[in-house]
Amino acid sequence: MPVFLNSDDADFERGFQAMLGAKREDSTDVNDAVTAIIRDVRARGDAALCELTSRFDRLDLTPGTLRFSADEIAAQVARVTPEDRAALMLAAERIRAYHARQMPEDASWTDPEGATLGWRWSAVAAAGLYVPGGQAAYPSSVLMNAIPARVAGVERLVICVPTPDGIINPLVLLAAQLSGVDEIYRIGGAQAVAAMAYGTETIAPVDKITGPGNAYVAAAKRQVFGRVGIDMIAGPSEVLVIADGDQNPDWLAWDLLAQAEHDADAQSILITTDPAMAEAVAAAVERIIPTLDRAAIAGASWRDFGTLIVVRDLDEAAVLSNRIAPEHLELCVADPEGLAAKCLHAGAIFLGAHTPEAVGDYVSGPNHVLPTARSARFSSGLSVMDFVKRTTLARLTPGALAAIGPAAVRLAASEGLQAHGASVQARLGTLNERLSE
Amino acid sequence: MPVFLNSDDADFERGFQAMLGAKREDSTDVNDAVTAIIRDVRARGDAALCELTSRFDRLDLTPGTLRFSADEIAAQVARVTPEDRAALMLAAERIRAYHARQMPEDASWTDPEGATLGWRWSAVAAAGLYVPGGQAAYPSSVLMNAIPARVAGVERLVICVPTPDGIINPLVLLAAQLSGVDEIYRIGGAQAVAAMAYGTETIAPVDKITGPGNAYVAAAKRQVFGRVGIDMIAGPSEVLVIADGDQNPDWLAWDLLAQAEHDADAQSILITTDPAMAEAVAAAVERIIPTLDRAAIAGASWRDFGTLIVVRDLDEAAVLSNRIAPEHLELCVADPEGLAAKCLHAGAIFLGAHTPEAVGDYVSGPNHVLPTARSARFSSGLSVMDFVKRTTLARLTPGALAAIGPAAVRLAASEGLQAHGASVQARLGTLNERLSE
Repeated sequence: MPVFLNSDDADFERGFQAMLGAKREDSTDVNDAVTAIIRDVRARGDAALCELTSRFDRLDLTPGTLRFSADEIAAQVARVTPEDRAALMLAAERIRAYHARQMPEDASWTDPEGATLGWRWSAVAAAGLYVPGGQAAYPSSVLMNAIPARVAGVERLVICVPTPDGIINPLVLLAAQLSGVDEIYRIGGAQAVAAMAYGTETIAPVDKITGPGNAYVAAAKRQVFGRVGIDMIAGPSEVLVIADGDQNPDWLAWDLLAQAEHDADAQSILITTDPAMAEAVAAAVERIIPTLDRAAIAGASWRDFGTLIVVRDLDEAAVLSNRIAPEHLELCVADPEGLAAKCLHAGAIFLGAHTPEAVGDYVSGPNHVLPTARSARFSSGLSVMDFVKRTTLARLTPGALAAIGPAAVRLAASEGLQAHGASVQARLGTLNERLSE
Repeated sequence: MPVFLNSDDADFERGFQAMLGAKREDSTDVNDAVTAIIRDVRARGDAALCELTSRFDRLDLTPGTLRFSADEIAAQVARVTPEDRAALMLAAERIRAYHARQMPEDASWTDPEGATLGWRWSAVAAAGLYVPGGQAAYPSSVLMNAIPARVAGVERLVICVPTPDGIINPLVLLAAQLSGVDEIYRIGGAQAVAAMAYGTETIAPVDKITGPGNAYVAAAKRQVFGRVGIDMIAGPSEVLVIADGDQNPDWLAWDLLAQAEHDADAQSILITTDPAMAEAVAAAVERIIPTLDRAAIAGASWRDFGTLIVVRDLDEAAVLSNRIAPEHLELCVADPEGLAAKCLHAGAIFLGAHTPEAVGDYVSGPNHVLPTARSARFSSGLSVMDFVKRTTLARLTPGALAAIGPAAVRLAASEGLQAHGASVQARLGTLNERLSE
């Protein structure tokens, strides 16, 4: 049964905290297994990749067949229906248009002391995108990861996608093609992450790895973090819908179930000012679940993590939303902009009754790779910023060094860093010569 | 002896790769110890903090004395000389002015389909800054971490600084005061990171932890990553100086030694087009080392990791610089801007002979917390961006949903996510009613 809470109840705080603290992830410790896989790939390269792919994906590869050939890609892409192709192209175009606005700007200025300061952005040289295989091989995720990288100017873009029993979703390859990626390897799991981080005979290493994956992929990304950059450690997905009493309960029920059908660990939460709305939505959810193809998954998610909360007013809803820091936040209220201004911690906000979260998964334009598990408190969804880095710039004139250098000398002395100070003094002609005799 | 390389030598590539791959970090595995400390702090809170501080810092605390009192801070700050205070204030003002320009802008626009899209930035609510104790308790690092957080609008800012045997550097407390931080705890190590990530009876948890630290602190930050945000895993510091033949070798020697004196694992590299310059700088370094207070540290760093490379021209220097991806890059050449344009991967660039790296450590304005160990390939120095996060925004009109919704329905079907499609169809009135009966 989903949890029903009312903020007027005496034990509300206890129930809310239990909901926040509910452990939604499998606690299986996969770290040791992942460490061994990474070590194996580093030591044996392609041979390890082929052996692990045979074991985990029941697919026999050689170094020469790790990568999809141009002919294989063309043959798979040709199987996509015109309708699916058109939909994917619309999505790609809208995602590209949104992300093109994210490119950060360089800056340069000269201050009164004569120091020219600023910064410059440049693209990561090579990025690797992990795409889960099987049922979770989402072409939309290919677009959401690859297009920001392309917009950023990443020159080399690699995709790793496992193909269990050799099966590949043709739309994944089409999405890669639409994003301009043709270096695609049919490997997955921790071994794919290791190959992208450290390289093998066939696969050159990349500088940054992004993309979702299972517990092995997440653990591998955490372990290679530092050697390469990573986007984030993705957890189970979640949605918070805040609704007033003037909504269509069926629409809200579908929104909650769109989240629940992802994963038995996904979480769907409704906060409403109207107790009758909470009841109506709960009833609609129960009515719909048995009709779903993924009834077992959605049903388990709703049963274990589904939550309905009745609050006094929308201000209280905003306070609770900020404590939840949801990945997806839908505001189905009369004044969604007014409420959004009070909801400070959320990955993505969907405003108004005609903006279901599902359009954000595919076609609205913003990225669907978003911070999960309360991490919207401190992190952002995937963007062009994930594929660029900033170099700070400073150029001092002799006059600028004379103006601000003595303060650096003083602070260096206070920190006991003599050569720091001397490097400034030598240029200012104030270095005590004894030091360099 | 430092390594001498010449790009014309037959075995140059081997020598350069050996330099790049040299292991500069202690391989001691501290992960298990850190895991135990974090578990202890989560289980026993303040009691664990006091016990661990007694053990590691030889300092007996109670929950009531974990935090510096206002009187204690005032008494310590009063000990700072006027000269040191003035230098620190100049540094703080310049760092604030530089970082104020980094605040990212919100965006909002409406596209032809009627979708209003955009994003909004908001500050992390609470951040914790780790400041190393003892000799490495640098007041400049307090400014470099705390000021960007303040500029970003972080409301609650916490500092943890260990005080072995009760000793604190008064300038650290003054730097905190200048940055507007008064919540300062005298704890360190993995236990401080655990306390900031999970909270104790006395210390409320934060959302983001930044700041340098030893191997225990680095391991703890890696382990709590996800629960809170972290800045980066800092490694040993490094500088690359690129020089033509028209430089003062003593100045360059001081710059290399300013890096070497930090840490025996630090690395100083000179690339020059002039073999005589390489010889002259090497000779100056050898002459200066014995005169340094930190001769043992600087000498060990130079002996084990110091490198001098002679190249044919500055284009070749830029290529090597991009492979090194240095934390600090000094361009002591006639046209530093021209060379900087070719150096794509660097944390910070210092242009021209009058911009020693040491001014960047203190007073030039850009941040001195920079990506180490080749991570400038994919990451940036600390900035205001580390203390804000982006929320994407989308609002569709019914017309916009009618225009782009069908593509979302199509893609949802291709991914087998029925409720995703239905949440759009329900609003468009195109839902097959059998589904919701």
